[in-house]
Amino acid sequence: MHRYRSHTCARLRKADVGTSVRLSGWVHRVRDHGGLLFIDLRDHYGITQIVADPDSPCFAVAETVRGEWVIRVDGEVKARTEETVNANLPTGEVEVFARDMEVLSAAKELPLPVFGEPDYPEDIRLKYRFLDLRRETLHKNIVQRTKIIADMRTRMAEAGFTEFSTPILTASSPEGARDFLVPSRLHEGKFYALPQAPQIYKQLIMVSGFDRYFQIAPCFRDEDPRADRLPGEFYQLDLEMSFVEQDEVFSTMEPVMRGVFEAFAGGKPVTQEFRRIPYDEAMRKYGSDKPDLRNPIEMQDVSEHFRGSGFKVFANILANDDKAEVWAIPAKTGGSRAFCDRMNSWAQGEGQPGLGYIFWRKEGESLGGAGPIAKNIGEERTEAIRNQLGLEDGDACFFAAGDPKKFASFAGAARTRAGEELDLVDRDRFELCWIVDFPFYEWDEEEKRLDFGHNPFTMPQGGLEALSGADPLSIKAWQYDLVCNGFEIASGGIRNHLPEVMVKAFENVGFDRATVEDRFGGLYRAFQYGAPPHGGMAAGIDRIVMLLVGAKNLREVTMFPMNQQAQDLLMSAPSEATPQQLRELSLRVVAPKKD
Amino acid sequence: MHRYRSHTCARLRKADVGTSVRLSGWVHRVRDHGGLLFIDLRDHYGITQIVADPDSPCFAVAETVRGEWVIRVDGEVKARTEETVNANLPTGEVEVFARDMEVLSAAKELPLPVFGEPDYPEDIRLKYRFLDLRRETLHKNIVQRTKIIADMRTRMAEAGFTEFSTPILTASSPEGARDFLVPSRLHEGKFYALPQAPQIYKQLIMVSGFDRYFQIAPCFRDEDPRADRLPGEFYQLDLEMSFVEQDEVFSTMEPVMRGVFEAFAGGKPVTQEFRRIPYDEAMRKYGSDKPDLRNPIEMQDVSEHFRGSGFKVFANILANDDKAEVWAIPAKTGGSRAFCDRMNSWAQGEGQPGLGYIFWRKEGESLGGAGPIAKNIGEERTEAIRNQLGLEDGDACFFAAGDPKKFASFAGAARTRAGEELDLVDRDRFELCWIVDFPFYEWDEEEKRLDFGHNPFTMPQGGLEALSGADPLSIKAWQYDLVCNGFEIASGGIRNHLPEVMVKAFENVGFDRATVEDRFGGLYRAFQYGAPPHGGMAAGIDRIVMLLVGAKNLREVTMFPMNQQAQDLLMSAPSEATPQQLRELSLRVVAPKKD
Repeated sequence: MHRYRSHTCARLRKADVGTSVRLSGWVHRVRDHGGLLFIDLRDHYGITQIVADPDSPCFAVAETVRGEWVIRVDGEVKARTEETVNANLPTGEVEVFARDMEVLSAAKELPLPVFGEPDYPEDIRLKYRFLDLRRETLHKNIVQRTKIIADMRTRMAEAGFTEFSTPILTASSPEGARDFLVPSRLHEGKFYALPQAPQIYKQLIMVSGFDRYFQIAPCFRDEDPRADRLPGEFYQLDLEMSFVEQDEVFSTMEPVMRGVFEAFAGGKPVTQEFRRIPYDEAMRKYGSDKPDLRNPIEMQDVSEHFRGSGFKVFANILANDDKAEVWAIPAKTGGSRAFCDRMNSWAQGEGQPGLGYIFWRKEGESLGGAGPIAKNIGEERTEAIRNQLGLEDGDACFFAAGDPKKFASFAGAARTRAGEELDLVDRDRFELCWIVDFPFYEWDEEEKRLDFGHNPFTMPQGGLEALSGADPLSIKAWQYDLVCNGFEIASGGIRNHLPEVMVKAFENVGFDRATVEDRFGGLYRAFQYGAPPHGGMAAGIDRIVMLLVGAKNLREVTMFPMNQQAQDLLMSAPSEATPQQLRELSLRVVAPKKD
Repeated sequence: MHRYRSHTCARLRKADVGTSVRLSGWVHRVRDHGGLLFIDLRDHYGITQIVADPDSPCFAVAETVRGEWVIRVDGEVKARTEETVNANLPTGEVEVFARDMEVLSAAKELPLPVFGEPDYPEDIRLKYRFLDLRRETLHKNIVQRTKIIADMRTRMAEAGFTEFSTPILTASSPEGARDFLVPSRLHEGKFYALPQAPQIYKQLIMVSGFDRYFQIAPCFRDEDPRADRLPGEFYQLDLEMSFVEQDEVFSTMEPVMRGVFEAFAGGKPVTQEFRRIPYDEAMRKYGSDKPDLRNPIEMQDVSEHFRGSGFKVFANILANDDKAEVWAIPAKTGGSRAFCDRMNSWAQGEGQPGLGYIFWRKEGESLGGAGPIAKNIGEERTEAIRNQLGLEDGDACFFAAGDPKKFASFAGAARTRAGEELDLVDRDRFELCWIVDFPFYEWDEEEKRLDFGHNPFTMPQGGLEALSGADPLSIKAWQYDLVCNGFEIASGGIRNHLPEVMVKAFENVGFDRATVEDRFGGLYRAFQYGAPPHGGMAAGIDRIVMLLVGAKNLREVTMFPMNQQAQDLLMSAPSEATPQQLRELSLRVVAPKKD
């Protein structure tokens, strides 16, 4: 017989009644029913109820065991009486009468209870992660994560992709976030860097003549703590394809992403055909380049109704600034003074002077707009606004005015808030869309110069010709994001594979050819020797898992996360290096200069 | 129509004749046959022949293209004439008559030819790795590597394993090889380390209540350059199981490993049932704990034949040292003076005084031993040796004498050399075996103290009782290696999950409880709270791929390897950090002290 088990704790059924079995696992909990001991025995797979009565030869041992001890039990499978059957447990029709019991490992008093998983401070949970991970929810999340990743792998392989690993000890990247550095012992004073993403390597893979690369890729960024990002490392579903345009990336990856979501959505509906929303349109309608499409609110330009109107604040803004507009945020069912005032207070809390509104209500037979703005612009304009937005009795509308570049993201936040407060958002679905046509360049107001909008390696729409044109700010990039429920879950682009286009693109932001050669030597050199057109994307795995399991925090979908101070409390990292280690690396730790 | 291709370069067949197609790829080579241009167009998938004749509208473009340019071709599929069919090419029955041709990317003069893949210096190959990877052999090796890894994943999943990722930014490990350190910016003067292996994490995963973990795991060791190991990072098929003994690890992993080998052995036979050879036996028979079982030579103890014999060198060694033995290395078909002298010279080149031998030859009717040893020990003893070893006319035997601990590995090398020189080794097969029962402790002659034989986390056979016994050097560990054709391809063990056994095991090598707690805090603490018995192993993926594709060098199975000086010549890593980076990390580079 196997030393530890004949079955896992999830396997026994009524058909096994009468057989002799051996189980091993953790003591999930012990109940003493008048001398009869009931032990819920738990392993990775499930729970089986063990019974020890005073006549059992192992009763004396059974009396000693406590929560989270690891034991082996030999016994006989018996059917439970009808009234004690546990329908919630796959093994709930049987129990095992213990004949022999061996303690494989005892447990000290638990710093963190496993059974019932009560709330506990996070530092304790992280320090005793091995106990935390035994808790039902976290265990389930982690298992689900592994299944989602395995499913991604399967779908990518079915779509003709090959998984390649790219180096983790590599060169510092001059763009993007801050690198983690790794001192070289053999090359004094020099450093490797951990990859922020395999961006350059995956492009080199395409230039090396492979096709359809993917990788479940660890990525590293030394960023300051942020609530929505784990410090240190995170995982991407990274992919790249040769000889493609944007459409083919979409038609290839939509089935993969939709498939993954459908497989793990637990029955919630998933968008069947992903809309492609140009960046400009997303900003106008949703005030965000990662709109939550479950929120039905779409903003509209209502400037014309305010131009020269009696609401002087807006009328003056429009008169004094060519770029100024007034946007409406229609809020169905929001038509009460209480709600409008609440939104106004929220806006003030966000540092805004306030949030103008109109709300409509039946006054006798007629439908009238209420609130200060309606009063100032008069009935006719109020009605015109209502008609444009299709609002009715009991609805409201909020307004933002000025240069849209400056207020769009606040307006987007107001749209989100109104949608959520009014419960207009259908939470039980996954709404996916592509955001396309991102601006290639943007104006850096602080440094008063042109800068890249997103990825400097992206191909500008229109190529060299567009780059040489008069208005660089009008150039769009072959750059796209995949958005789900208000989160950017993937980002990608068609890459610039032409060295001359690359040089020109950098020239426009003030870098000369020598700088490009110096900073992007590997890739720039590769492009000189026959580079295929290529493009791809990278999806954030941690975020996707979080959405699919409904977790609120990345640490709830990560096995051994660091805390927000970038410390591993379980393994005590980071820690001091020994003098010998520092000597070997030719390094000295110095107190930072105050400046 | 697709912007770049209607088919890949491997797809067209006779059935496609008459259709209009679009292909994109690299110009593999161009041949000019009297005005008719033949272009071999290559992509990831294959090669298709393009023909451009002077009447083609694109002839002028076709005349300009050179090797490794990337082009798009539109044209018509035509059948080749019978005498021009290329049976070696899947597309060899057709060619595409070009109507339109577009240069997607030109190539400068190539620093490294792709076509024909002539030998080239390795530094050029690494610097222009993107060209090197386009060469047929390396491209094939890398594709094969991805298939082997995908196959491992499939088999592991089928065996009930789940793939978990473990952290890459973690704590420095106090045992084993040298860590790569990663300075922490947020915690001044402190460092993370890259994992040498996920050993501690995989054990924590078991303690966390999961079962059957595996991972295609990147591992990092800052070692001095070695010919048989890539600097920096390497990959392991890492796995761990709960509630198992050694037998179950073997019965679970044998089908996986055999399956992977059979799937990629190209028809070469693979061991069906892996022998389990105790370490002591392996050393005695093969002089190695990673024996090449394709070599039929098995060494034997022939001490008794030399004790008190006329061959004084051996007789004295045996008389003066209780531990001394004489081992025979039988070498069938090696029975010529020329071969025996060659072996003797080789041994001297290895720093040995020489290699004694006897060889047998027919002298008239009788079979006689020749050489100085045979003369010294006389006919009877010579014949006894021959009988013990089962040697015949034309065979030889070599001898090593002294303390087997000291000469065993030399004797093993002589066994290997004799087997290879005499072509006794059947190279066209994969011989796999387990080496088991490694010594738990070994005597450190330099430091005159007991040390761990292998892994301090392994469970000693006999547990606490054995550890408390009189002779620690006699204790065996539940530690095993998997060996193929003379290479250790995997290593593992049943772990010590009992804190008291751990403390005792360390006590025997001079560490007290506090040191264990301090150095192995995470794991030691975890073992206090209910740890399951567990064990596993890790297989070296790079080595396995190398064996299966028949490569001579790890750089031939790795996409972007560093050179032997731990430099990435393509990306220029390692490189200098900027003053700002160093300031942020509170580090200063200092010249190493001379000492």
